[in-house]
Amino acid sequence: MLLRDPVHGLISFESDDATIVPLLLQTREVQRLRRIRQLGLTCLAFPGATHTRFAHALGAAHVMQHFVARLRKIHGGLPFWQRLTSERAREAIAAAFLHDLGHGPLSHLFEDALKHSELLGGRAKPHEYYTEQILLDPSTDVGRVLRDTDSELPQRVAALVRGEHELPYLARTVSGTFDVDRCDYLLRDAHATGVSYGEYDLPWLLRSLRFAETSGDVAPGLAIDGLKGLSAIESFVLARLFMFQQVYFHKSTRAGEWMIRSILIRALQLLRDGTRLPQMPKAMLAFATGREPTLGEYLQLDDQMLLEAINQWRDAADPILSDLCERLRARALFKTEELFGSACNPRERARIDGLARQVAEDAGLEPDLYAGVDVAQDTPYSDDASLTVVMDEGGRARRPAEVSFVLDRLRDETLTRARLIFAPELRPAIRALLAKES
Amino acid sequence: MLLRDPVHGLISFESDDATIVPLLLQTREVQRLRRIRQLGLTCLAFPGATHTRFAHALGAAHVMQHFVARLRKIHGGLPFWQRLTSERAREAIAAAFLHDLGHGPLSHLFEDALKHSELLGGRAKPHEYYTEQILLDPSTDVGRVLRDTDSELPQRVAALVRGEHELPYLARTVSGTFDVDRCDYLLRDAHATGVSYGEYDLPWLLRSLRFAETSGDVAPGLAIDGLKGLSAIESFVLARLFMFQQVYFHKSTRAGEWMIRSILIRALQLLRDGTRLPQMPKAMLAFATGREPTLGEYLQLDDQMLLEAINQWRDAADPILSDLCERLRARALFKTEELFGSACNPRERARIDGLARQVAEDAGLEPDLYAGVDVAQDTPYSDDASLTVVMDEGGRARRPAEVSFVLDRLRDETLTRARLIFAPELRPAIRALLAKES
Amino acid sequence: MLLRDPVHGLISFESDDATIVPLLLQTREVQRLRRIRQLGLTCLAFPGATHTRFAHALGAAHVMQHFVARLRKIHGGLPFWQRLTSERAREAIAAAFLHDLGHGPLSHLFEDALKHSELLGGRAKPHEYYTEQILLDPSTDVGRVLRDTDSELPQRVAALVRGEHELPYLARTVSGTFDVDRCDYLLRDAHATGVSYGEYDLPWLLRSLRFAETSGDVAPGLAIDGLKGLSAIESFVLARLFMFQQVYFHKSTRAGEWMIRSILIRALQLLRDGTRLPQMPKAMLAFATGREPTLGEYLQLDDQMLLEAINQWRDAADPILSDLCERLRARALFKTEELFGSACNPRERARIDGLARQVAEDAGLEPDLYAGVDVAQDTPYSDDASLTVVMDEGGRARRPAEVSFVLDRLRDETLTRARLIFAPELRPAIRALLAKES
Amino acid sequence: MLLRDPVHGLISFESDDATIVPLLLQTREVQRLRRIRQLGLTCLAFPGATHTRFAHALGAAHVMQHFVARLRKIHGGLPFWQRLTSERAREAIAAAFLHDLGHGPLSHLFEDALKHSELLGGRAKPHEYYTEQILLDPSTDVGRVLRDTDSELPQRVAALVRGEHELPYLARTVSGTFDVDRCDYLLRDAHATGVSYGEYDLPWLLRSLRFAETSGDVAPGLAIDGLKGLSAIESFVLARLFMFQQVYFHKSTRAGEWMIRSILIRALQLLRDGTRLPQMPKAMLAFATGREPTLGEYLQLDDQMLLEAINQWRDAADPILSDLCERLRARALFKTEELFGSACNPRERARIDGLARQVAEDAGLEPDLYAGVDVAQDTPYSDDASLTVVMDEGGRARRPAEVSFVLDRLRDETLTRARLIFAPELRPAIRALLAKES
Repeated sequence: MLLRDPVHGLISFESDDATIVPLLLQTREVQRLRRIRQLGLTCLAFPGATHTRFAHALGAAHVMQHFVARLRKIHGGLPFWQRLTSERAREAIAAAFLHDLGHGPLSHLFEDALKHSELLGGRAKPHEYYTEQILLDPSTDVGRVLRDTDSELPQRVAALVRGEHELPYLARTVSGTFDVDRCDYLLRDAHATGVSYGEYDLPWLLRSLRFAETSGDVAPGLAIDGLKGLSAIESFVLARLFMFQQVYFHKSTRAGEWMIRSILIRALQLLRDGTRLPQMPKAMLAFATGREPTLGEYLQLDDQMLLEAINQWRDAADPILSDLCERLRARALFKTEELFGSACNPRERARIDGLARQVAEDAGLEPDLYAGVDVAQDTPYSDDASLTVVMDEGGRARRPAEVSFVLDRLRDETLTRARLIFAPELRPAIRALLAKES
Repeated sequence: MLLRDPVHGLISFESDDATIVPLLLQTREVQRLRRIRQLGLTCLAFPGATHTRFAHALGAAHVMQHFVARLRKIHGGLPFWQRLTSERAREAIAAAFLHDLGHGPLSHLFEDALKHSELLGGRAKPHEYYTEQILLDPSTDVGRVLRDTDSELPQRVAALVRGEHELPYLARTVSGTFDVDRCDYLLRDAHATGVSYGEYDLPWLLRSLRFAETSGDVAPGLAIDGLKGLSAIESFVLARLFMFQQVYFHKSTRAGEWMIRSILIRALQLLRDGTRLPQMPKAMLAFATGREPTLGEYLQLDDQMLLEAINQWRDAADPILSDLCERLRARALFKTEELFGSACNPRERARIDGLARQVAEDAGLEPDLYAGVDVAQDTPYSDDASLTVVMDEGGRARRPAEVSFVLDRLRDETLTRARLIFAPELRPAIRALLAKES
Repeated sequence: MLLRDPVHGLISFESDDATIVPLLLQTREVQRLRRIRQLGLTCLAFPGATHTRFAHALGAAHVMQHFVARLRKIHGGLPFWQRLTSERAREAIAAAFLHDLGHGPLSHLFEDALKHSELLGGRAKPHEYYTEQILLDPSTDVGRVLRDTDSELPQRVAALVRGEHELPYLARTVSGTFDVDRCDYLLRDAHATGVSYGEYDLPWLLRSLRFAETSGDVAPGLAIDGLKGLSAIESFVLARLFMFQQVYFHKSTRAGEWMIRSILIRALQLLRDGTRLPQMPKAMLAFATGREPTLGEYLQLDDQMLLEAINQWRDAADPILSDLCERLRARALFKTEELFGSACNPRERARIDGLARQVAEDAGLEPDLYAGVDVAQDTPYSDDASLTVVMDEGGRARRPAEVSFVLDRLRDETLTRARLIFAPELRPAIRALLAKES
Repeated sequence: MLLRDPVHGLISFESDDATIVPLLLQTREVQRLRRIRQLGLTCLAFPGATHTRFAHALGAAHVMQHFVARLRKIHGGLPFWQRLTSERAREAIAAAFLHDLGHGPLSHLFEDALKHSELLGGRAKPHEYYTEQILLDPSTDVGRVLRDTDSELPQRVAALVRGEHELPYLARTVSGTFDVDRCDYLLRDAHATGVSYGEYDLPWLLRSLRFAETSGDVAPGLAIDGLKGLSAIESFVLARLFMFQQVYFHKSTRAGEWMIRSILIRALQLLRDGTRLPQMPKAMLAFATGREPTLGEYLQLDDQMLLEAINQWRDAADPILSDLCERLRARALFKTEELFGSACNPRERARIDGLARQVAEDAGLEPDLYAGVDVAQDTPYSDDASLTVVMDEGGRARRPAEVSFVLDRLRDETLTRARLIFAPELRPAIRALLAKES
């Protein structure tokens, strides 16, 4: 199978390890990823960001093929039981391709909204749960393809996606600081948004991979040849930091996400109160009635279905739901005000959140849905052992921050972006509030 | 207004001529273009091709700003009444931004399907018709923004989109062999598909623009300074040829389009016969009953609505509609066989088309929907007067093919790609048929 | 060995087949290529074009590694004696790396100048002759490295560079329409000049390689899988055409080359007449006295030595030599006038050449050195058998033009660029001459 | 004037402010920059790095045109006497184009070597001194072109190159943390070496420029609109850090530079002692005899002359000079060992330097020339006032580190790379020395 990919160029799955990919590609569960955008509503801020989880899955599997090729060039020095056999390569490629199967509509967004809904009492499951279900459930096409290849494959792929494998170095390529997921999404999100800062040097990173020193029977971890690859690692971390600053934490994206959350919470409230809404996905009905949706119901969910439902809900009888849906459809996004300095600490944020809700209430708007504080956080670099650095032949494995000028200075530092988000008509009152506060 | 665009990088609309763009951007009709993919079903073959008409509209307006800037650098030699005033620049930028407003779902696809439907008796209107309606209708947001700026603006923009203007050189930038539409879509489609052949040298093309010699009061046409820009023109034509060969005529795209056409035709038949189908767009109901849809009904149509309808129609009572929708959802695409040589001429194609339909019928499949000949054609280069070439100071305007080695050899040549398209289970019978024929 | 290359990114020579490259890299004859620019005087027109034959040699060897990898993926279907053994891969990589060893200063320029010099009576040898000498001579580092690896290696590499090998498909990768030399220089010249037209899709071309059908014991030729790779082939041919039009035939480059030729011819004349010139390369002294230079003398020649000699010759007693060298040093280039239409045919060109020389003579300038007609020609595409196209599994090998829309229209067509080149002070007289002629 | 540049694409100097560039381009002093490589011997490590100061000068002038265009878009709010008049724009563009005129052979290398030579007693002048001489001297072509335009222009351009101007914001674009010199060289060095880390987002940086708040009559400084441009600033600083880590401090480059320094020091010693050497540049003779070279002598120096002299010195009678030149010619580079941790502090470095020299002496090699400690240092980011950041309309100007997550963590931190450099045959003894030390 040969494909053109805007990020990696030519993608092919023709090695023996990868022949499972074309089979998996034809499953309904993988095809469903065509209908889920990688970055949810980010295209409201970056018009090009319409790329899908499907393209990302292909990209991640492609990058995994490169990891496999590199690991095989260097695994000759390991005991034979620690080497990357064809079976292990196959499960790694499958895991890379399938790691995102369980995402709901708009990627993280649907999941986050359910998590925030008090109605569900925290019973909403994360997408990782659904990924595992899809891999293991006897009813899915994906499960069938995996089982037909090897009866243990579903379990092994599921374990790898969780980051568990008898070869820790292989587990880290699926789930770690420098895993194939990040390797692909950084480049892909950069390509689609036009934010060049997300680029880093993948070929050089791959070429610098080696095994860390190890003792005894335990398979070694991954390391980087420091003289060749340290800059690749550094630029990878910085690329991710830049993408958070520029894209993932962008104010319009966060405002759009807030609105979706408000819409979903409102719809769930109405459903629980017995209101009927058109075009309602069965999975949402289940959630609203405290029932776990069936896997089949969950898999019907996708961006197209959810957005078309929101389109129809513009005609809902409930004025709040109707209003929120109308605003989102017309991209009349909520506005934001950044909170700096002391306003950023948790206690103050909570206080300001309360004041902002009061502003909404005073204006006759539902306080939980129309105003509040939004906090986005990420720690760009934590010095862990998932990838070490070796500076010279026979040298010991060091943590990257030990040898990197820039990572040493970023280690464990947290980037926080806090904002007030509110309906545009509240801006004067919100500004007055902030002026009084500062 | 500042935007990041994956193709052009930084896009801004801040000059006086362009301040209308942010206003138009907020209209419902422009926002609707976010829900229409530029290349319809091409993402079935090229996973990255999920870019929208919305991003293309921004890109076309951006390119028009560059045309305007260039034309202003050189219009000093023209009589003042032929120069590019601020009003004219504004209408050109607006026309570039709005030229695609009338597209139906999946871009050309919906329109083509209706055109092919005998049911409609050729009464289906082209998207250009709807673009003009949206510009002129008193009920649209776009019409309001234009009128609020200048009461004649809707009419002037509509004329420009049709390629009519008192300055022919300006008209050609909106609609001509080297117009802003093509300038943007070639680069954008190349970027999204990963097909590098679609690239050409836009800055050099722009920089080489000049006016052709003219006589009397008639405003001059556009020309290219041949020593600087001929290669840019040549590579533009070749880029377009390559995109046709690689992307627009790709077999999977054509097969998917065939299936959509079959689905829409079948749905219209059912509607006409009185069958009710869920999620049916009102505009389709109108078409099926021989009524022209209202503009509001037409504007409700978008990819999301149509694809979600197809999703629901999988449960339709009609086994043919249900089957076609199920296949498309699962990307179980129809197969193709290329027709070469003499099989390609119109008479032979018609004969083979008949034989293929018979194959379908023999297999118990609806012949009009499950098999037939698909013909795709384009003439990459016709030597017209929309852009001439001047080889030296004061020299006469020549047709590009007169001075170009490669365009001279492509002039008026037509690229034809003919294929049999059919349900996969017909492959053995189709192959037998072709073997017998050759 | 790992290298960063601006064109191919990461270059490494670490496979068993390629370990000879780091050894060859350290030879004086290869290091000499660092001092010879790939495009001679082209940097006078394109300031970035300072890249060297050394970088090109690395690039060509890198591309050959990709050819080898691809050929090995597909050679399993051949009889074992036709497969690409490790020895054959090694000699192919060595040949790619060494194919340009014999170039004189400023690449083709020195060779062309000697060829044009009547003084030498056509005895000047082409660079291919010197490449072979360097490979076979017992005194060179390169010869020693090759012999130390395998005593037959010098002869086998020399044969491959000439395009001779028991595996014709391998010979064509070193010397053919789509050889590694062109594969690299098109991309490299495009990258260095900034002329984007020189790009084509190398990975897709490589991936589309297959063997043509063959009969009997003869090893098959190379073919392209037409559905995947035809566009790559087409764009390769067009990229080369564009580079000729834009770069290799650029008027400033041709004018600079004309001046170098005049300088060298004049210097040889003076030498023959017994004049001593400072900094004179020994090889030129040999040429001037009708003696073949030794290989050691030839290898001392490089850009730096020749250009520094020209720098010193500005102080020569001969006013003509001094004048020409001073002009070149200050980039006071000769001017050009394009000859179009009938003026372009050989008979007319000869007549105009005579008239132009007369103009120079009338102005008191040496006619042979200060004015004349310069003709540049290339046939972008000749349909040969070095690479065929296979359109479907088991299909016959066709010539590319048979199946390619654009190559069919370019086949055997010749691009000719004829110009008058002359000292700037002759411009009025030359223009008057041309005006009278037209 | 139109040029193709591999970094910026199309470069043109056609505005009224820039018409001086084509005039300056024809001067001998500017043409001389064609013969000086931007990165000296870096091409020994990165084969593509053959780009010249000439191309960089064009690039810097091109970037300055963009700065001028941006400053003019925003200077409307300043009092008229603080605005960027056409005269000021012209002198800024000229200063950008000419800022490197005084560089000696191999860029910084020749200057550094003379600085290190005790023979010259610290009397060697920096390249800035020569730049100013060339601008002001009555005998130069450049001086004449500037004076012919405006008699005060030489002085004004010289002041700007020193970073002095009545408009501080303009001075900072010529000489500051984010000046046109860095803007161009980061991109150009990245393009030529293939080290992608050197890229940053120039258009976004330019677009984000604004004036900082100011009080009274003093012209304001430059600022960045923080919401739009902070990432551009951050990535600029990081790009420079990466280029230092990867390229400017590369071990092969540093080793080659050490060798050139040894060669020049040795040659000067020999000259002082009365030895005659062939091909000796007159400027070096002057230096060796304690005389300041004339400007004409200095301007004869370029890479080609120096490297050809080194070529000839291989035949020198002095065995040390001959040996060093032979090694460099054959790229038999000195080797390096990194010094980490405590070995890096100044006191330890001095001790190790002494020990290494002793190793050389013990091996019969000249200790000053064949072994020693090489220290490279840079402070990637110092928070100065040359560019401030404004976070919101009417907000105060802040230092970048105050608002930037990453710059705050890099502020005033110094990157140090210390290495032992030595002739390859000393490696065992040097390794033994280091083993004993650690």
